[in-house]
Amino acid sequence: MLDKLLITGAAGGLGTLLRGRLFHVATSVRLSDMVDIGAAGENEEILRCDLSDRAAVAALVEGCDGILHLGGVSVEKSFDEILPANLVGVYNLYEAARASGLPRILFASSNHTIGYYTQDTHLDADVPLRPDGLYGVSKCFGEAVASLYHDKFGQETAIVRIGSCFPEPRDHRMLSTWMSPDDFVSLIDCVFRAPRLGCPVIWGVSDNDSRWWDNSAAAFIGWRPKDNSDVFRQKIDAAMARPAADAPDAVYQGGKFTAEPIHRS
Amino acid sequence: MLDKLLITGAAGGLGTLLRGRLFHVATSVRLSDMVDIGAAGENEEILRCDLSDRAAVAALVEGCDGILHLGGVSVEKSFDEILPANLVGVYNLYEAARASGLPRILFASSNHTIGYYTQDTHLDADVPLRPDGLYGVSKCFGEAVASLYHDKFGQETAIVRIGSCFPEPRDHRMLSTWMSPDDFVSLIDCVFRAPRLGCPVIWGVSDNDSRWWDNSAAAFIGWRPKDNSDVFRQKIDAAMARPAADAPDAVYQGGKFTAEPIHRS
Amino acid sequence: MLDKLLITGAAGGLGTLLRGRLFHVATSVRLSDMVDIGAAGENEEILRCDLSDRAAVAALVEGCDGILHLGGVSVEKSFDEILPANLVGVYNLYEAARASGLPRILFASSNHTIGYYTQDTHLDADVPLRPDGLYGVSKCFGEAVASLYHDKFGQETAIVRIGSCFPEPRDHRMLSTWMSPDDFVSLIDCVFRAPRLGCPVIWGVSDNDSRWWDNSAAAFIGWRPKDNSDVFRQKIDAAMARPAADAPDAVYQGGKFTAEPIHRS
Amino acid sequence: MLDKLLITGAAGGLGTLLRGRLFHVATSVRLSDMVDIGAAGENEEILRCDLSDRAAVAALVEGCDGILHLGGVSVEKSFDEILPANLVGVYNLYEAARASGLPRILFASSNHTIGYYTQDTHLDADVPLRPDGLYGVSKCFGEAVASLYHDKFGQETAIVRIGSCFPEPRDHRMLSTWMSPDDFVSLIDCVFRAPRLGCPVIWGVSDNDSRWWDNSAAAFIGWRPKDNSDVFRQKIDAAMARPAADAPDAVYQGGKFTAEPIHRS
Amino acid sequence: MLDKLLITGAAGGLGTLLRGRLFHVATSVRLSDMVDIGAAGENEEILRCDLSDRAAVAALVEGCDGILHLGGVSVEKSFDEILPANLVGVYNLYEAARASGLPRILFASSNHTIGYYTQDTHLDADVPLRPDGLYGVSKCFGEAVASLYHDKFGQETAIVRIGSCFPEPRDHRMLSTWMSPDDFVSLIDCVFRAPRLGCPVIWGVSDNDSRWWDNSAAAFIGWRPKDNSDVFRQKIDAAMARPAADAPDAVYQGGKFTAEPIHRS
Amino acid sequence: MLDKLLITGAAGGLGTLLRGRLFHVATSVRLSDMVDIGAAGENEEILRCDLSDRAAVAALVEGCDGILHLGGVSVEKSFDEILPANLVGVYNLYEAARASGLPRILFASSNHTIGYYTQDTHLDADVPLRPDGLYGVSKCFGEAVASLYHDKFGQETAIVRIGSCFPEPRDHRMLSTWMSPDDFVSLIDCVFRAPRLGCPVIWGVSDNDSRWWDNSAAAFIGWRPKDNSDVFRQKIDAAMARPAADAPDAVYQGGKFTAEPIHRS
Repeated sequence: MLDKLLITGAAGGLGTLLRGRLFHVATSVRLSDMVDIGAAGENEEILRCDLSDRAAVAALVEGCDGILHLGGVSVEKSFDEILPANLVGVYNLYEAARASGLPRILFASSNHTIGYYTQDTHLDADVPLRPDGLYGVSKCFGEAVASLYHDKFGQETAIVRIGSCFPEPRDHRMLSTWMSPDDFVSLIDCVFRAPRLGCPVIWGVSDNDSRWWDNSAAAFIGWRPKDNSDVFRQKIDAAMARPAADAPDAVYQGGKFTAEPIHRS
Repeated sequence: MLDKLLITGAAGGLGTLLRGRLFHVATSVRLSDMVDIGAAGENEEILRCDLSDRAAVAALVEGCDGILHLGGVSVEKSFDEILPANLVGVYNLYEAARASGLPRILFASSNHTIGYYTQDTHLDADVPLRPDGLYGVSKCFGEAVASLYHDKFGQETAIVRIGSCFPEPRDHRMLSTWMSPDDFVSLIDCVFRAPRLGCPVIWGVSDNDSRWWDNSAAAFIGWRPKDNSDVFRQKIDAAMARPAADAPDAVYQGGKFTAEPIHRS
Repeated sequence: MLDKLLITGAAGGLGTLLRGRLFHVATSVRLSDMVDIGAAGENEEILRCDLSDRAAVAALVEGCDGILHLGGVSVEKSFDEILPANLVGVYNLYEAARASGLPRILFASSNHTIGYYTQDTHLDADVPLRPDGLYGVSKCFGEAVASLYHDKFGQETAIVRIGSCFPEPRDHRMLSTWMSPDDFVSLIDCVFRAPRLGCPVIWGVSDNDSRWWDNSAAAFIGWRPKDNSDVFRQKIDAAMARPAADAPDAVYQGGKFTAEPIHRS
Repeated sequence: MLDKLLITGAAGGLGTLLRGRLFHVATSVRLSDMVDIGAAGENEEILRCDLSDRAAVAALVEGCDGILHLGGVSVEKSFDEILPANLVGVYNLYEAARASGLPRILFASSNHTIGYYTQDTHLDADVPLRPDGLYGVSKCFGEAVASLYHDKFGQETAIVRIGSCFPEPRDHRMLSTWMSPDDFVSLIDCVFRAPRLGCPVIWGVSDNDSRWWDNSAAAFIGWRPKDNSDVFRQKIDAAMARPAADAPDAVYQGGKFTAEPIHRS
Repeated sequence: MLDKLLITGAAGGLGTLLRGRLFHVATSVRLSDMVDIGAAGENEEILRCDLSDRAAVAALVEGCDGILHLGGVSVEKSFDEILPANLVGVYNLYEAARASGLPRILFASSNHTIGYYTQDTHLDADVPLRPDGLYGVSKCFGEAVASLYHDKFGQETAIVRIGSCFPEPRDHRMLSTWMSPDDFVSLIDCVFRAPRLGCPVIWGVSDNDSRWWDNSAAAFIGWRPKDNSDVFRQKIDAAMARPAADAPDAVYQGGKFTAEPIHRS
Repeated sequence: MLDKLLITGAAGGLGTLLRGRLFHVATSVRLSDMVDIGAAGENEEILRCDLSDRAAVAALVEGCDGILHLGGVSVEKSFDEILPANLVGVYNLYEAARASGLPRILFASSNHTIGYYTQDTHLDADVPLRPDGLYGVSKCFGEAVASLYHDKFGQETAIVRIGSCFPEPRDHRMLSTWMSPDDFVSLIDCVFRAPRLGCPVIWGVSDNDSRWWDNSAAAFIGWRPKDNSDVFRQKIDAAMARPAADAPDAVYQGGKFTAEPIHRS
């Protein structure tokens, strides 16, 4: 069990979903974001931090023995908006970790690193990257940094390519990409309790009938997701039309992100 | 949901098993065969058709937005018997579909396209073909036609290599090849409801303990078979002797078909 | 060395290129075609034959200990034109061979069995088929027949997927697909002299700098092509413009065949 | 069902676990070991035998129609201690089987044939061997003998690379390697009832969440393990500290065996 | 033939080697660097440009129909030194290309994207990245940008992972990684004359006896390197001692880069 | 360059071929065999040694910084004849090497470790073993010992699976398996001069047109064979009939070894 788990991006969607649910993983958590997170609960500590501020990140990481790195931009934006947190910030985080005794990191990567694969393609962890936007490119960068710090310094990272983590899948594509919050919690547990982690790529997806991704290479960490998006299929069918066969949401694993333009700042 | 699903070969074994079970897939069905099928039930339409008759096939397909192509010879016969429905007929069907707006097709292919692989071989969807008779060759031809019409015109087809679809497995080999009718129904449902299908090869087999075939490449359509032939194992053991170790039924995936001669007309 | 080599399609392009060049392979050759081939030369025998005539094909094959099967339609045509020689004829040929002691066969298959792969794809002998027309489909059928007769009867066939066999490459695409007549002759020699052949797929292509196809699985027959289309590159560049980047000749391995419609008879 | 199953190494750990549990596999069992096994029970026969004694092994095998070969050294020892049973003895056993009509063999191989793969590696049945000691080398030898006798004489063997077969997993590494005795019993049943076995490599492991090994190539024998070590995780966490990240038990699949020296006799 | 080829980084090592050697590829060249390049020769145009200046890069690219992107930091440096040209600059370049009609790009990537693979590993173009420093990470970023602009806009890029391009190999490791300037020139020629390029990864290495990299997936562009470092082996053996077996230059494909620390600005 | 190279089996066929040809690899050689080798030449030292004598082997290895291990039985014999040198002797050799500072070893393994693959199979270095006799099994054992000592102690070994090393190929099968003595000499040179070797499997075969084996994984050692058996083809065709299609010499890579019985002592 960890003494102190740092959670970056704690005010975001994933951070909010997970708040209060990780006390079996860590005795205490340090929550951080650029924006206000509210008051600290029991065994919580709150530190506001801009990930592009190298010194601030060093202070943020200091004293933590695990990091759940959810921070940074998580949708398609302009390069100038992505640069500070997702490029500079990731470098800052890994340098801070190196200076702080290499606490294990779960890096929230994304399916948007491979979003241009079509939905009829089955992917294992070794496929070449095909990002679907500048956000996806920034996650490719983060994966490369994680790999470098593992090979050079032994820094361990679980590179989790998250599909869609919400209480329920929200559209037809998410029937394939959904990861339930419960399954994410059990994944986090597996990542931090494994005696040895290395630097594996793990697909962050539940046991959905229509999954695209193969996690067998990471079976060693012992994560077996329990939820299946199929129980929500009728609800989604009732709520919205299926996407057209040539809609990005039906063609590409990255869905609508592939149809985004390059944003200008 | 489809408006009208054409089922060819409706008088055959598979057609009979499925009759009346697909009204959640299509509002109405058009049943067709060379031979008498009996009277039409509610939401059924019956059209007798010889698949080798180009004009008749065009009329048959007209007005359907989905096709379950079970028709044609389904056992080893002479070339002259296989030619009309399985070669000419398949060409006619795809040409008719092209003229009718490319209704999605489920093409009943067969394990006899790969019947000469031995039973200790694990097959994915990409293995080279090894047909075990002229019937198997005709199904290889049909798969090639499906691929052509997909690449050239965008015609979508689920190429389903059916193992053995009966209410129960009938011998020891079928413990590996059996697909339950329920699982076939759920497969048909997945094929016709997928927002985008493409032209995948799908192994038509239940979740049998001793399966030979790997459907992970087609996981994207969301089919997860629920039945397992193992519940019938003791019954089969009681009813008949296991095949000898060098019997075709124990050696080859295609079983006895590999021992068939070339039939003369 | 063979006693008598049957060459079907002897009046066609390949047959003409090879005529008179195979006397180190066989003491005598039997030339056959539907159309007139002219007078027989020394050690030549000429037999006119329609491949769709089962009895005629039986007579044609009788007494030969090797078959170079070049006959049949070799361009995109209507199904009704392809059916007699390329479907019925191939079946007739294999049945005749079976009745005549299984003379080894070199089956002229085609790159049009895989013509829809893009030109930036590297193919080995095991890739799934992707025919680019009905002609390509008919060659897929022929390959399936060859496989069947090998598994069932031990009939040996070299399935040669010919690229473009002409004295010189004729356009930019052929810089990748060209097989020189000399290399074809040496391939024929290797096929018929190998102590044991089996039923391998062999890419019929010279040692071109820009080849797409990998013959290493068939290295055991000892064929090492000596020619390279690159010596013709400047000549082709001078003679014609390069194809546009989105022209079928620049996109697909099958080139212009992919742009052919389905021909009606 | 077998008439008489020979179990070698019957006095050892595995032999003791299995005793009395295989009467649905064989009408009677012949138990053998170098050391005393106690009195024979019903349908049991006891034969003391030194596996390095060629004539004794021939007598031992005589009259059996199945062999469960658990005998020999099963931990790291000196070469001189391993030689008699694990090298000479295995040769003796296969020669005896050949002289006795090729009774099917389940050969207890070991994860120590591949012990130097790291725990973050996912292995299928075809990976090159990486033994972690002289014991592991002796099992590589046995696997080679099994392969030879299969190819040369048709002798069938299930090469079972046993993980850790105990009533419960005993440490953190065994959460990955554990095979429950129940699952071993069902595996033995599948091995001896398969109409045709061949010579497959099978990973002897339960359906553990953190398994490293992929048995899909052997799915044809129909073994589906039912147990999962994960139910013991909390108990193990409570009983002992997790291994350090650089401890052999956390780094290598073979665990502590990789840290053993070469023993001198 | 191109009208105007932009060469960035023209004052660097590669730029200097190539200067004046590409007039068969392009009628004129635009040379660019941050530092002085000297006077323009015939058919040369010189434009000083800081790649991190978005507007300047847009002007630089304007009017060019091909880009040889050699610019940016090419050795291990601090993140703050790598950021402007290798991250921001690459983004600027691709945005400029997009605004200028998508001129084809040869992107000089590096073996340092995969530098942590050991020298006994054979790599094809699809292996996961393993950068050996921040420089390598920046090239991973560039490859991701190239992939994105290809999938989203059709921008074509040859991603050339250059080994060591010097007149001669300079040490023992370069016997594996060397690409002769002549071979680089012929590669550039192939890249810009291919009718269709796509976005392939190409290993920039000559036909060295001890090469580690497999270019068969990119054979379609028709590049066949002619030089072989082996002719320099004796000279190198005479000039310097071989590296120790555990020296980075003998262990890792990236050589000494793997031993570099993270540089601080 | 080595100071002293030990050559075991120096009186055998390979030893005789190589004698006097390795002085560019080592300043002096120590020749050893069980039988008389004749008088020592310049820079030669001769030591008679029985490989099954542990102390003698220790003395033999002492003072050598490289070992060319050709010793032991090299044809199919009885287990009792193979045991002393090929099992005990290999263990003795590796223990001696470990005690003597881990001199690099070239271990003469054999194609008979994989002899049951058919000749139409293309093998890379990772294929599962399929020995064709007890001799082949003993070489599998040796390969396992080499792997163990590499993983456990860092002992480097080139595992060379020699095809057929004679001045000329002697029959049709050897057109595929032949390694010229010159190519063997250059291979030995590459093995001992590589800065880092590891423990690769290398196919000992010349650049024959009809080779079966793929050495690309070992390209890093820089060996490029120069000879090609094809120049001897006509001579062999003239000297002997080709093997029948079902003769072991035409079916299996191991040739006649597959037809050998198990020898009794």
